[in-house]
Amino acid sequence: MDNAISALDKIISERKDGNPSTSYVAQLHNEGLNKILEKISEETTEVILAAKENTATEKPENVIKEIADLWFHSIVLLHHLNASA
Amino acid sequence: MDNAISALDKIISERKDGNPSTSYVAQLHNEGLNKILEKISEETTEVILAAKENTATEKPENVIKEIADLWFHSIVLLHHLNASA
Amino acid sequence: MDNAISALDKIISERKDGNPSTSYVAQLHNEGLNKILEKISEETTEVILAAKENTATEKPENVIKEIADLWFHSIVLLHHLNASA
Amino acid sequence: MDNAISALDKIISERKDGNPSTSYVAQLHNEGLNKILEKISEETTEVILAAKENTATEKPENVIKEIADLWFHSIVLLHHLNASA
Repeated sequence: MDNAISALDKIISERKDGNPSTSYVAQLHNEGLNKILEKISEETTEVILAAKENTATEKPENVIKEIADLWFHSIVLLHHLNASA
Repeated sequence: MDNAISALDKIISERKDGNPSTSYVAQLHNEGLNKILEKISEETTEVILAAKENTATEKPENVIKEIADLWFHSIVLLHHLNASA
Repeated sequence: MDNAISALDKIISERKDGNPSTSYVAQLHNEGLNKILEKISEETTEVILAAKENTATEKPENVIKEIADLWFHSIVLLHHLNASA
Repeated sequence: MDNAISALDKIISERKDGNPSTSYVAQLHNEGLNKILEKISEETTEVILAAKENTATEKPENVIKEIADLWFHSIVLLHHLNASA
């Protein structure tokens, strides 16, 4: 898990000043704090829905995917507030 | 960041089967999925409130703290669903 | 407030079976439960952001507008679950 | 629905300046904006969980109950911001 997060953090950091028309991260920074917070809230709801739809017998792949999205946008938030994660 | 998350994941995993009266993680597992999801939602709201109260000149320490809480409960969720993060 | 809610409830009810390409309510029902729940969550975040941006001296018009959106989607949810509000 | 909301609005308004140790509404106002917003978020999560647990054959009584809680706290928010709902 660790190397993936470090790599992700580095990429997100590099893309902060990219072109909003081609980089999703640059677009989020361009749209501002409220947009980033709305995305974090949206991903949390996706986590909740995926968890409620997860059955006992299956690997919670959708939950993992939605948590990854949630963490991704959390890291974008930290960069937006100029913190290093 | 990486070593902290690995260490946290290990501790959370170990405490899953602990005593609910002394371990917060064991207590969460004991209270069940909805309780864990409610905590994740609660921590997301804390992230949003902390981010809105953060001023441009200060280090976003409260935001970092709330994101840590959010990630913590996300890891608990993954363990609850029997996934390894 | 009351007459507005009754009128709204009636309109939302009537539009449930409308044309998804022209009616927002019909479109929501067509997209299903998760979409409606995601909208309710999104509107809650809008309420929180508007409330945090509201200053003591102004009328909380944005908060009122976002709460109206939240209640609107709550009523859609009740109709979707076949309850009459 | 209408008379219930009007009656609720009146009661919530009257209790704003009540005793925080005996009135839940006075307690919420006393704890402040963030607490009220956290409750709104919490009730939204309860709505989502209840809706996901609702089965096609049953009356969505839990969903209705949670939406009532959500609307209740929305009205408290409006009074807190000094708006009349």
